Amino acid sequence: MDIKAEAAKMKLAAPELAAASIEKRNKALDLIAKALEENKEEVFAANKIDLENADKNNIAAAIKKRLKYDEVKMRDSIAGLKQLEGLVDPVGKVLLSRELDEGLVLQRISVPIGVIGVIFEARPDAMVQVASLCIKSGNCAILKGGKETANTNKVLFEIIKKSAIEAGLPEGCLLQAEQHNEIDELLACDQDVDLLIPRGSNNFVRYIMEHTKIPVMGHSSGICHIYVDEKADQELAVPVVVDAKIQYPAACNAVETVLVNRAIAEEFLPKLAKGLDEAGVKLCGTKEAADIVVAKTGLNVEIMQEDAFAKEYNDLIISLKVVSDVKEAVKHINYFGSHHTDCIITEDNASAAYFTQMVDSAGVYQNVSTRFADGFRYGFGAEVGISTGKLHARGPVGLDGLVTYKYTLKGNGQIVGDYATGKKQFHHKDI
Amino acid sequence: MDIKAEAAKMKLAAPELAAASIEKRNKALDLIAKALEENKEEVFAANKIDLENADKNNIAAAIKKRLKYDEVKMRDSIAGLKQLEGLVDPVGKVLLSRELDEGLVLQRISVPIGVIGVIFEARPDAMVQVASLCIKSGNCAILKGGKETANTNKVLFEIIKKSAIEAGLPEGCLLQAEQHNEIDELLACDQDVDLLIPRGSNNFVRYIMEHTKIPVMGHSSGICHIYVDEKADQELAVPVVVDAKIQYPAACNAVETVLVNRAIAEEFLPKLAKGLDEAGVKLCGTKEAADIVVAKTGLNVEIMQEDAFAKEYNDLIISLKVVSDVKEAVKHINYFGSHHTDCIITEDNASAAYFTQMVDSAGVYQNVSTRFADGFRYGFGAEVGISTGKLHARGPVGLDGLVTYKYTLKGNGQIVGDYATGKKQFHHKDI
Repeated sequence: MDIKAEAAKMKLAAPELAAASIEKRNKALDLIAKALEENKEEVFAANKIDLENADKNNIAAAIKKRLKYDEVKMRDSIAGLKQLEGLVDPVGKVLLSRELDEGLVLQRISVPIGVIGVIFEARPDAMVQVASLCIKSGNCAILKGGKETANTNKVLFEIIKKSAIEAGLPEGCLLQAEQHNEIDELLACDQDVDLLIPRGSNNFVRYIMEHTKIPVMGHSSGICHIYVDEKADQELAVPVVVDAKIQYPAACNAVETVLVNRAIAEEFLPKLAKGLDEAGVKLCGTKEAADIVVAKTGLNVEIMQEDAFAKEYNDLIISLKVVSDVKEAVKHINYFGSHHTDCIITEDNASAAYFTQMVDSAGVYQNVSTRFADGFRYGFGAEVGISTGKLHARGPVGLDGLVTYKYTLKGNGQIVGDYATGKKQFHHKDI
Repeated sequence: MDIKAEAAKMKLAAPELAAASIEKRNKALDLIAKALEENKEEVFAANKIDLENADKNNIAAAIKKRLKYDEVKMRDSIAGLKQLEGLVDPVGKVLLSRELDEGLVLQRISVPIGVIGVIFEARPDAMVQVASLCIKSGNCAILKGGKETANTNKVLFEIIKKSAIEAGLPEGCLLQAEQHNEIDELLACDQDVDLLIPRGSNNFVRYIMEHTKIPVMGHSSGICHIYVDEKADQELAVPVVVDAKIQYPAACNAVETVLVNRAIAEEFLPKLAKGLDEAGVKLCGTKEAADIVVAKTGLNVEIMQEDAFAKEYNDLIISLKVVSDVKEAVKHINYFGSHHTDCIITEDNASAAYFTQMVDSAGVYQNVSTRFADGFRYGFGAEVGISTGKLHARGPVGLDGLVTYKYTLKGNGQIVGDYATGKKQFHHKDI
């Protein structure tokens, strides 16, 4: 497929999808849910081929688990579609309404971004989720899923596209890229693709970010920290750190590093080390932290060098470091962190305020697990991803991150010359 | 200067400026205004050197006019500083406040972006304007002005930086790049610079956009259109088009192309051509448009090829084309335009609604001059620039475009495990 030519066609078709009523867009979601149910045997048969191929290629068990698309996962997909249907339309909101002068009215109105390219991991449920988010927000989408689910994705995409067209959405609103080399073609479409959302491994996301001029929304790594302050409630701190590490260690919002205030290190680090060890977490740390833990608990701590703090484990491993105060903690986090989500454990309002103000991350927490950084938990409904960029959208991104705005100005012949010469004056009344 | 090292230092210092109170930031603006007044002879002496150098280098008169920084322009700078001081603080706004569960409170709070690089044209007033916008919004700034004003900029920058530090802002909040080769060094600082704002010629802005991984806010070209519909008020249309072309032809929001509905072309084009000709505008057009104008008025129209419609004149030249309906007009605009500002002249609500919905531009107007696309005219106070990108900020960008947000989450030991197992439920109450 000639991705460049298809993207150019899509760009010109995008305003048509943007103009589609919310009834049509919701109808599409409804038809997709029904069609999934009606064609489930075909979907499962395609998924069986993907799973057999995974066996042939000796794919790891953890990845195979994600490839599998069964009755339970389809239930989740259908429930997700129903939930999305119920969410408020993000398009057409009047964000500003201002009379610049008599009869001269400015409005700022939310509109879809246009053409979005999404490159996502080998999970069939991601295909349904991503396509439905783009439909709901009125965006044309070029979708490229992981090659390990090629057969399942092909069937799912056909179901989705057919349902969208049946609901009255324009023919050219969705496109599936199936070949790996088409990713590089997509990256070159900066004239026609307005936004890229890559999901997957750190290296993959970094590759995307470094090889395109299209704006990219997402995160390459999630190096999250918890700083345990001198005035921490230590009984609260241990379960929070353990949850942040073990509740889903491969998630980007799992904690990688715990910084402990020196004043409580001798008392707290052994308690924390025991809690983590019981949960099956391997301990790493600076020599100072390791010495304390080893002396008091006999547990094994691998001594690490300073630059290893920039590493995301994605696993049941954690880094420990002793710091002298909240200032040193903030400095460490802003230098080694990925500006994702970082937490302070303290009962002291001044330390908490300083930490919240100074840590330059999308999420800054006090006394709770970093695992809360998630669109569903924030109450945004569906989530497109988490952005560690600072422009447009930051943190968990819901439907609102898939829209932009345009300004409309209506008048009856007003010219700028009259205002430049002073013949007329603006009065700028919000209405 | 080692721009990369300086940018890295600035990145770590940025949270300190972000934490500076609005009183300190306003105080800095106040001190700059006073220091300009007190040191004006030094500023004017430096400007005299720039003007003498311009003479030696045979700089064009139009450009020399922009280099000149005199009593009148300093008055404007000082008035701008006073106005900016009066604007509401864009930092620290609570944009969302939600109780996720009892005792677990999420807030979205506006914060400065961090480190902004601004590369701007050779105008001393731009140095004052850009620096003061960054100070007001709590952003660290690396400033590079046009080389033709190097002497004036050096003095102005020293005044600004000294005043900022005197007001209590951190030492490292402002940096001036003076050498042209430092632009390329700045473009490579994607680890530490959060946003680049280039201002200047189309080619220059395009160069910046193509040679950096840092997000860029701005516009390379402004190809604005006016479509005169079958149901247009023709008496209104002529002065609107003339104003949009001549009120400031070098501005990005000046109109470049007028599309005229075929049903009124024979009647309207001659009237328009006369109006434009009287205003000193050179006419270009398709053969169809030219034939009509020549036959009815005898005025000269240079016949142009289709691909010439992608050109921005920045001058008293205009392109004319006959189209069959609003659909063809929209198609032309979305294909040849720069997604800046486009206008329909019509009394017909259906055509206006279609045009407003379908034109994919930052500004879509009805019955008014495209020259209204400007932050001051929109009532935003100071303007950083106009963005034709779709992410973060679109159209005229005021102080709000220089901030992002962070999420804060405060609790008392909540862990995600309890919600995952169903022991606790979110209730998501906006508070």
